[in-house]
Amino acid sequence: MLKNTNETIFFGGGVSVISSAAVGGKTEGEGPMKNEFDVLYTDDYIGCDTWEKAESALQLKAVETALEKAQLSCSEIDLIFAGDLLNQCTASSFGNAELHIPFLGMYGACSTMALTLATASVFIASKSCSRAIAATSSHFCSAEKQFRFPLEYGAQRCPTCQRTATAAGAFILSGSEENNIKIKSATIGKITDFGITDANNMGAAMAPAAADTIITHLKNTATVPNDYDMILTGDLGFIGSTLLNEMCVSDYNLNISSVHEDCGKLIFDREGQDVHAGGSGCGCSASVLASYIMRKMKMGEIKRLLFVATGALLSPTTTNQNMTIPCIAHAVEFSS
Amino acid sequence: MLKNTNETIFFGGGVSVISSAAVGGKTEGEGPMKNEFDVLYTDDYIGCDTWEKAESALQLKAVETALEKAQLSCSEIDLIFAGDLLNQCTASSFGNAELHIPFLGMYGACSTMALTLATASVFIASKSCSRAIAATSSHFCSAEKQFRFPLEYGAQRCPTCQRTATAAGAFILSGSEENNIKIKSATIGKITDFGITDANNMGAAMAPAAADTIITHLKNTATVPNDYDMILTGDLGFIGSTLLNEMCVSDYNLNISSVHEDCGKLIFDREGQDVHAGGSGCGCSASVLASYIMRKMKMGEIKRLLFVATGALLSPTTTNQNMTIPCIAHAVEFSS
Repeated sequence: MLKNTNETIFFGGGVSVISSAAVGGKTEGEGPMKNEFDVLYTDDYIGCDTWEKAESALQLKAVETALEKAQLSCSEIDLIFAGDLLNQCTASSFGNAELHIPFLGMYGACSTMALTLATASVFIASKSCSRAIAATSSHFCSAEKQFRFPLEYGAQRCPTCQRTATAAGAFILSGSEENNIKIKSATIGKITDFGITDANNMGAAMAPAAADTIITHLKNTATVPNDYDMILTGDLGFIGSTLLNEMCVSDYNLNISSVHEDCGKLIFDREGQDVHAGGSGCGCSASVLASYIMRKMKMGEIKRLLFVATGALLSPTTTNQNMTIPCIAHAVEFSS
Repeated sequence: MLKNTNETIFFGGGVSVISSAAVGGKTEGEGPMKNEFDVLYTDDYIGCDTWEKAESALQLKAVETALEKAQLSCSEIDLIFAGDLLNQCTASSFGNAELHIPFLGMYGACSTMALTLATASVFIASKSCSRAIAATSSHFCSAEKQFRFPLEYGAQRCPTCQRTATAAGAFILSGSEENNIKIKSATIGKITDFGITDANNMGAAMAPAAADTIITHLKNTATVPNDYDMILTGDLGFIGSTLLNEMCVSDYNLNISSVHEDCGKLIFDREGQDVHAGGSGCGCSASVLASYIMRKMKMGEIKRLLFVATGALLSPTTTNQNMTIPCIAHAVEFSS
């Protein structure tokens, strides 16, 4: 039933988005997306005693909210696909444990929302399951502590740094249903490594992966940028977005600037909020896609969307060992 | 084309194992599986300068060996599904980067071999791709350093501890081909948490997850233990295996002892090697399955196999925060 052209898998009309939910923290609730989130917390501990538990609570809230919006209970969901940035993906495993839904853990760093959506779509379109959840999260405080410095150090962040969003997003997918947003196809990315070693400049490291996946998707679907109302990258932020646009022109002779947007640019106000190069983290693209973008698709303002989430597949250990940053980007095409 | 009964997905005859490879380290090469591995290293650094790079090299070697055995090149593979125990799954991302095969990162702790095989099987059976690799690895030294103590400390390990295998396994799956071992079905596990907090007794923590998935699979496939030539758990080791057998009898009135085996028991010699409660790590079940068990299936000594890999979804951070250990087990049914 499914068709594949090299890296791209086509789902026909077989995958519908039946609900989505976005949950955010304090800084996210003060930014341009404040009216888009389903739930906003003013205390980033979310009533927990550790940042890690708070991130689990954030992801669980996104999943529960998506279930409520679809008027479904856990027993009506076959599978959940989830992952996050914490070591051993514990935000997802601890967050979703109480749901008792068969669980597939995935790791794609900040590309996780596209990775889980693409994989869940294959399961749905092939009728390996009837309804599935795709979810991910990130938390500024758990990420800073793990990847950089504990917040208590008061370490200064450099201008190329992006701010990990305290946010989670969840989608419920189902077989073909009328009048719904569809997932039409997905392109699984290759790992690209351009030799960048600066873990404080993720946008630059990830831009080549985004370019590669966008070009591959356009080629395999025989489309051009203007066939899409929006090509939405995950979280390249301000620096990575500029590089992506330049790279598409210089390396591929392709201008995507008229349709390109980036979740890392959308989620925060660069002037009014102290976010340096923009937003990042699995929850950044997940929450922007699940709220603002899905609303625009429902209203018909976006009819065809290419969502390209990017991930930097490094760890603090590999950074300490002076290794380069392998990156990846997965693309998921939506239509309404 | 695919059929699902709750947690179990049926692949018909659509998924063939066209090759598998197992790679091991020094201790593994001194144990009962020494003649089964395709490649054995006597130096656990594998020519690298860090344990993490050595683990990446181990996983890459398993993938390359599986490709050689199938006489296939990377360009003939559509997708690779891989994951490991290192923070941010870097053994897989750094190990497989140079292959330039579209990459799906997964995380299931020591259940990863079953998780990647099950997911790859859905992609193959649904024709979302033609050929896929499923791979995973673990390394005693990188795991001890990350989860317990650097080896240089000379910390004493307790009797319930299992020894992380320095090993990797890789499978190449393809659409239906004659005379091959088939993957017939898979059951995706739920996260179970029995409140165990002792991270030095993983077997006990994981046994309930194994029991739950085995019972679920038997129920959904309307089979009994003796329908299988072997029910092979991932790496419960000696303590977890005993608990699993007891639990199946006491909680489910089911005796699996006549067909049950465990990769954590098979990979090392408990008497002759200093391995405490047996083997563990993603590479333990992956390498035993990819070598010894696949050979037995090819020779017709095992015709129907239920492979149930178990994973403990904790991290050092969650252990330090006194949290319990959520566990999971995924089942993959093979026939020849």
